[in-house]
Amino acid sequence: MTQLTPDASGVFVIAVTPFTPDGGIDFESCDKMVDFYLDVGATGLTVLGMMGEAPKLTVEESRDVVARILARVNGRVPVVVGVSAPGFAQIETLTKMVMDLGAAGVMIAPPSSLRTDDQIVNYYTQVAALIGDVPFVLQDFPLVTGVQMASKVIARIANDVPTCVCLKHEDWPGLEKISTLRADGVLNKRISILCGNGGLFLPEEMARGADGAMTGFAYPEMMVSVVEHYNRGDVERGQDIFNAYLPLARFEQQPGMGLAIRKYALAKRGVIAHDALRKPGAGLSKESRVEVDRLIARQEKRLKELG
Amino acid sequence: MTQLTPDASGVFVIAVTPFTPDGGIDFESCDKMVDFYLDVGATGLTVLGMMGEAPKLTVEESRDVVARILARVNGRVPVVVGVSAPGFAQIETLTKMVMDLGAAGVMIAPPSSLRTDDQIVNYYTQVAALIGDVPFVLQDFPLVTGVQMASKVIARIANDVPTCVCLKHEDWPGLEKISTLRADGVLNKRISILCGNGGLFLPEEMARGADGAMTGFAYPEMMVSVVEHYNRGDVERGQDIFNAYLPLARFEQQPGMGLAIRKYALAKRGVIAHDALRKPGAGLSKESRVEVDRLIARQEKRLKELG
Amino acid sequence: MTQLTPDASGVFVIAVTPFTPDGGIDFESCDKMVDFYLDVGATGLTVLGMMGEAPKLTVEESRDVVARILARVNGRVPVVVGVSAPGFAQIETLTKMVMDLGAAGVMIAPPSSLRTDDQIVNYYTQVAALIGDVPFVLQDFPLVTGVQMASKVIARIANDVPTCVCLKHEDWPGLEKISTLRADGVLNKRISILCGNGGLFLPEEMARGADGAMTGFAYPEMMVSVVEHYNRGDVERGQDIFNAYLPLARFEQQPGMGLAIRKYALAKRGVIAHDALRKPGAGLSKESRVEVDRLIARQEKRLKELG
Amino acid sequence: MTQLTPDASGVFVIAVTPFTPDGGIDFESCDKMVDFYLDVGATGLTVLGMMGEAPKLTVEESRDVVARILARVNGRVPVVVGVSAPGFAQIETLTKMVMDLGAAGVMIAPPSSLRTDDQIVNYYTQVAALIGDVPFVLQDFPLVTGVQMASKVIARIANDVPTCVCLKHEDWPGLEKISTLRADGVLNKRISILCGNGGLFLPEEMARGADGAMTGFAYPEMMVSVVEHYNRGDVERGQDIFNAYLPLARFEQQPGMGLAIRKYALAKRGVIAHDALRKPGAGLSKESRVEVDRLIARQEKRLKELG
Repeated sequence: MTQLTPDASGVFVIAVTPFTPDGGIDFESCDKMVDFYLDVGATGLTVLGMMGEAPKLTVEESRDVVARILARVNGRVPVVVGVSAPGFAQIETLTKMVMDLGAAGVMIAPPSSLRTDDQIVNYYTQVAALIGDVPFVLQDFPLVTGVQMASKVIARIANDVPTCVCLKHEDWPGLEKISTLRADGVLNKRISILCGNGGLFLPEEMARGADGAMTGFAYPEMMVSVVEHYNRGDVERGQDIFNAYLPLARFEQQPGMGLAIRKYALAKRGVIAHDALRKPGAGLSKESRVEVDRLIARQEKRLKELG
Repeated sequence: MTQLTPDASGVFVIAVTPFTPDGGIDFESCDKMVDFYLDVGATGLTVLGMMGEAPKLTVEESRDVVARILARVNGRVPVVVGVSAPGFAQIETLTKMVMDLGAAGVMIAPPSSLRTDDQIVNYYTQVAALIGDVPFVLQDFPLVTGVQMASKVIARIANDVPTCVCLKHEDWPGLEKISTLRADGVLNKRISILCGNGGLFLPEEMARGADGAMTGFAYPEMMVSVVEHYNRGDVERGQDIFNAYLPLARFEQQPGMGLAIRKYALAKRGVIAHDALRKPGAGLSKESRVEVDRLIARQEKRLKELG
Repeated sequence: MTQLTPDASGVFVIAVTPFTPDGGIDFESCDKMVDFYLDVGATGLTVLGMMGEAPKLTVEESRDVVARILARVNGRVPVVVGVSAPGFAQIETLTKMVMDLGAAGVMIAPPSSLRTDDQIVNYYTQVAALIGDVPFVLQDFPLVTGVQMASKVIARIANDVPTCVCLKHEDWPGLEKISTLRADGVLNKRISILCGNGGLFLPEEMARGADGAMTGFAYPEMMVSVVEHYNRGDVERGQDIFNAYLPLARFEQQPGMGLAIRKYALAKRGVIAHDALRKPGAGLSKESRVEVDRLIARQEKRLKELG
Repeated sequence: MTQLTPDASGVFVIAVTPFTPDGGIDFESCDKMVDFYLDVGATGLTVLGMMGEAPKLTVEESRDVVARILARVNGRVPVVVGVSAPGFAQIETLTKMVMDLGAAGVMIAPPSSLRTDDQIVNYYTQVAALIGDVPFVLQDFPLVTGVQMASKVIARIANDVPTCVCLKHEDWPGLEKISTLRADGVLNKRISILCGNGGLFLPEEMARGADGAMTGFAYPEMMVSVVEHYNRGDVERGQDIFNAYLPLARFEQQPGMGLAIRKYALAKRGVIAHDALRKPGAGLSKESRVEVDRLIARQEKRLKELG
């Protein structure tokens, strides 16, 4: 069984959850999506994250989605599953369920009630004790959770909790956090730092010492390419490619609406059959569809120019 | 089957969920607790509310607790079950489960992301459509949810959604809301208004037109007595009794810590076997136990003086 | 000139700012109010706090109010002035202005943007450097500021910043904070702990090691009496008196509305000429006035019974 | 005297406030900055906005900065001044002060305590009454204020308050708001819609019906050019120019850190003498400076390619 390790790198794509227009789970699109993500170079997948509409699924549906995706991945890359929940019992149940199914680890965001440094550290210490030896990703996403974790708090958790193997870095701004965590003497062990925010700062994040990305974008090949170019030292070419995708990436990064844009673009690309969001999510307006179409057309033109 | 109706009145006690010291559910204490609540005059029960540690339970545990309580109540009073959850699928599943078990209705608090008037109205319109003909309690508790509902928003929901039969009124301050909602021409149908906040404003709430309380307190007989005295017009005696319990009620109304105080007092009274909270909840410090003991001793003395 | 010291104790009443019905400052009522507060036993005053409608005053008006109150106090007790402001320049200007006028120290609440432990400590370190040798009160009031300070953060500030001489303790719940801060080895110097929340937990706070209160209530003699009875060891009598005032204190402690209740009661007592709040503050509804009148009448009756 | 009108269009640059390294106001840089902004085509200026470090200034300093900038502008373009403050008295005083100095109007953001639709409408109704016939800009910036205004709330204010002449549109996402407000029958009068967010969505905003931008960016010529190209129908060229600047614009749009980036770039361009922020603002790390330098170099190269 693939286990998530501190050496995780590359691009862990945050998978969407495909639905049919009537709100059912579209399992066939799950398969196609997995194939697509792996074909473009994903080194891992993360399912049932915030952009995976996880809270809209029942426990049974969550199990079925994870099972289907794991079956299709079939051990080729590690699959991380989001298990954030309001209570410990739910986190414990979900974790056991997905690890039994073959997940490589889980991702846990802090509940929005946490404020002080110790509250945050205690939360992760308790939750880690709860899930035993399951490796987990610490999700630092203040824009959505409302929880601000100082670098020193992340370091305390990473240093004290052996199963904390990866940081999903999604503070905004967050570049100094990467530099701080990668400075000598801050961490007493290696952890993987995979970045979020739709890849919008990926070139700078790689330069600061990130290991890659763990986020979604309708064109994950951009992230794969940026990471590869940075890893081989060709940062200018990496930035050229990044810039070509940036107008659309910026557009997809609009809070709330971003997922509808992503699903629309994925459906347009044929990756999933429908761009449906489950209620209460709403689809794109006609104007937005036109805007996305235009950005994609321009993006293709620019990529051709770049060769 | 008892259904929750707009005529709900009296005291719907928010039940705690009894645990054993090792974190298991204490079903025997569930039974004793139900007997106690009904003996002191509860006209209904509300289980798996915020003070019922609902998010700490798995779905299976929630079902077992509800089933046990419903079995013990055995139709004597209506039982409302809290089904607030981050997503519609969970709310739908929980609602179906508890209604099948025999609940009289469900209680739904707004997710903390709601801000504008229309967002709130739309949320309840959608959720009501989702759960069909199940009567529900609209929970207005801004201190915890962060969602501020104007009186006119509550009125819009009550007027537009036939299955909204009751308001759990827990704004602070909230007295003007009761007066506004009870004014001529604001509501086009009757809804029940049952008040929260540990009963801390119950005398004034009754005077403003509330139908009773839906909240917890280790001495629910206080709320029963206040409601009865107000209903029969003996407001001064009602206030005397309220005042006798007020020092402890105030103490129990401390956010977060309040549940530990309530469980400690209930255990001390023999209503539940243990004062245990499930993790991450913490118990009371030794100092707090002394303070509660002292307040209870003084309360008994004062009640004796009142005769 | 009286300076605020770590030995501050007793009751520092949070003064209201009296207005005329047309929104002007009522300086004559300032004088009467000062006389009243000192007559009932206040050991200090705190002006331009959150309940002093400070943000509604221009800088010139703030200066005039402080000057008038200081003139009337005439050195009999220390006067602390709230100088919380969005920016350092404003805090510096206000502090210099009020210290030149003769204030004993200033009170500073954290801006609501602060989250991590270090952010809070850094803020107070910087602000203390800015105001030089002026003693200040650290205001810990999460319900209003949204900033949660762990006990260890308060201890770091108290220990590191010589001019931090007093904690306005207003967390809710906050009793454990007092116990923690008063435990051996936590603070390396004495600071005064004066409690807020309208005195609603004053008996327990005194028992935990507080030095008194720094808060407002239309009947500050209650707080003076509770502190005195606790200091002389007569805690039961202190609690009796507290309990007599509790129904009104509870009613006055409603957020937002509380100040209107306080001013109404103070005006009714003849302490200030008008119960006017400056816009956008609103007055009491007729129903609320009736409720306050009734609570006051009952309070007087109960105090008579107690002798 | 230039008055702000509903016909405001083009680019109102949000001016920074230049400081010397020791924290003093750098008035000479104020002059150079004004010249620069007007030279690149600004059709207006907005000073003392959130990015103008307004809360860090004393009232006297605010007056001096506004006076200096107005003197240099000398009536060539309208100058809007931010007057948001915690209380009405401060808003009134600041408004009178800056209008007497020759400002064209004021900009007002909602206090973060506002939640319900009516609270927001009432606030602007009251504040408009307070400032009389002064035209004002309604600032809709939920990311910073925490206040979410529905389109219908903006419409109510625009329709009911004659002096509301302009919306600073800064919701994120906010494109649908522009479309809604520009739809037939929503507004009963014309208001100007000028967009924020560092121009990051300016092409789409222009297409939706915005009149231009009111925001800051170290290269305001980008915004001027985008607006001009859209106005003359050359949207593809407008988008090309936008895209060339986007990598830097994205980088500058990091919350908090963005102002340091902007000042660094402006200083590098010679527009202001120093990149100093007043405390508690911090400067850029060495890594960030390198990143900005690199982005600027690439931007210049790309602009050359575009011709």
